[in-house]
Amino acid sequence: MKYDSDKLLFAVDLAGTLLFGIEGATAAIAGNLDFLGLMVLAFSTALAGGIIRDLLIGAVPPSSLRDWRYAATAFAGGAIVFFMHRFVVGIPGQVIMVLDAGGLALFAVAGTEKALLYKMQPFIAILLGTITGVGGGTVRDMLLAQVPTVLRADVYATAAMAGSAVMILGRRLGLSSNLAAVLGGIVCFVLRVVSVWQHWNLPKIALL
Amino acid sequence: MKYDSDKLLFAVDLAGTLLFGIEGATAAIAGNLDFLGLMVLAFSTALAGGIIRDLLIGAVPPSSLRDWRYAATAFAGGAIVFFMHRFVVGIPGQVIMVLDAGGLALFAVAGTEKALLYKMQPFIAILLGTITGVGGGTVRDMLLAQVPTVLRADVYATAAMAGSAVMILGRRLGLSSNLAAVLGGIVCFVLRVVSVWQHWNLPKIALL
Amino acid sequence: MKYDSDKLLFAVDLAGTLLFGIEGATAAIAGNLDFLGLMVLAFSTALAGGIIRDLLIGAVPPSSLRDWRYAATAFAGGAIVFFMHRFVVGIPGQVIMVLDAGGLALFAVAGTEKALLYKMQPFIAILLGTITGVGGGTVRDMLLAQVPTVLRADVYATAAMAGSAVMILGRRLGLSSNLAAVLGGIVCFVLRVVSVWQHWNLPKIALL
Repeated sequence: MKYDSDKLLFAVDLAGTLLFGIEGATAAIAGNLDFLGLMVLAFSTALAGGIIRDLLIGAVPPSSLRDWRYAATAFAGGAIVFFMHRFVVGIPGQVIMVLDAGGLALFAVAGTEKALLYKMQPFIAILLGTITGVGGGTVRDMLLAQVPTVLRADVYATAAMAGSAVMILGRRLGLSSNLAAVLGGIVCFVLRVVSVWQHWNLPKIALL
Repeated sequence: MKYDSDKLLFAVDLAGTLLFGIEGATAAIAGNLDFLGLMVLAFSTALAGGIIRDLLIGAVPPSSLRDWRYAATAFAGGAIVFFMHRFVVGIPGQVIMVLDAGGLALFAVAGTEKALLYKMQPFIAILLGTITGVGGGTVRDMLLAQVPTVLRADVYATAAMAGSAVMILGRRLGLSSNLAAVLGGIVCFVLRVVSVWQHWNLPKIALL
Repeated sequence: MKYDSDKLLFAVDLAGTLLFGIEGATAAIAGNLDFLGLMVLAFSTALAGGIIRDLLIGAVPPSSLRDWRYAATAFAGGAIVFFMHRFVVGIPGQVIMVLDAGGLALFAVAGTEKALLYKMQPFIAILLGTITGVGGGTVRDMLLAQVPTVLRADVYATAAMAGSAVMILGRRLGLSSNLAAVLGGIVCFVLRVVSVWQHWNLPKIALL
């Protein structure tokens, strides 16, 4: 039973890695990178968030470097984009967005879980869960010499943060770890999808 | 006595964190970031230097992630800028500059102290003290997709380096740790303030 | 015998550090940085690849911060460019390219060796060897707010990766560590030099 649940989690984790890898590789094409740059962006987008989290909590080598299947999955995402580019660009943007919201929710929840496991304080665990979710996209944008999208627009990191906070609140209120994680993931996913659908943005200070 | 001195140091450290947080958030507004981007820049500018130092010397999790009050203070700096923006932009630039020089001196000295505590060689401790002082601003500029100011102009990192070097030299010459630290901090602060006042810049090679 | 071989390796390692430091400082001048920025780029280009590798495998403090001679050598490269700029720009580009290919081969092989020493899986060791070779140049370009060259053009990271892979394959096939390392280094070096000579580039997806 435990074994099956671990296998399920691992499979879901790899699914998120594949998806983020595909998104990173797509950004690489828009940035005019070559095959190697595309693979580096697939890897970074998929795995940099978790790697930064692991470095910060002292879990070295990071889990995505202990098991070669993470890197292989991210590279597989890159290869799909490279060799099946016409097919990938044909996928409707809304499908990508919903899948991406799922990946974000998964990564945020997993990051929070691991931070708590390493005895980080709740407030810091929320930060680390958010970094796990958005760190990959941030590194991707920095490699493309652009201001990270997540800092400028959309309810994206905010959704990750809300999901992570709900998860921690749930545990405080006595929910089981699993239930709290599922609840946090749902909050992150729904908030992200609704925010895109409703064109929500965070406020910003306009310069006069 | 020891207890009071520790409390004082902690208070001064948080004051530097608040100030750097305010500066980071101000840069975020100039860069057209939203509320979340503003908070990320407040956090990065205030704490990234110390986090990089702690990762390099193997002090993980970094001290600013062990105690939630550091992150909370940096975010408070961000909130001050967001909610009292008109007030913050009204503060004269010279006041900001002098306060910033104080923050730089504090961070450089604290970074050097911690590097020595972790048995780093004197020359490396100077580098780590400098990174502690200027790392936050460097990460802030990289997130804004700009060449870090510290690499292009002004006597800024140089002031941190000089303060750190004086501190280590003082210890070598037999001064107490505290006296050497105070002396190093003063050198950094004075060098920074005088360099702005006198429009000092480091030489650069002009391309023909 | 062992002692002489270690001394030789250390000398070769410092030679690579000096060369990469010179290249980083040269890029700093093109980027209009001041003396401090030039020194930071010399340091980053020469040592960032190894520092990232050491952080990822948990070898902290990184070896280039344990021994002050690495930083001093990188800074010496910066000083050579600063004080003998006219001489350095006079060196033919082809000489620089061949020397650089040698540095790349050395760093890739040394990075792979250290990753294997820290029990990383072969596939991950290839990644870490490549990061050791190209990480410095990537950080240099990011500090200059440019998309890293290595992601866009040339057979550069690819040469490092091929050399690292050949080295690991050689060990699998029963070659001694030394022979495998030499073989991997030669493959990296030759592939890099021939690719520049023949104007090879990796394929990229052209946007329609």
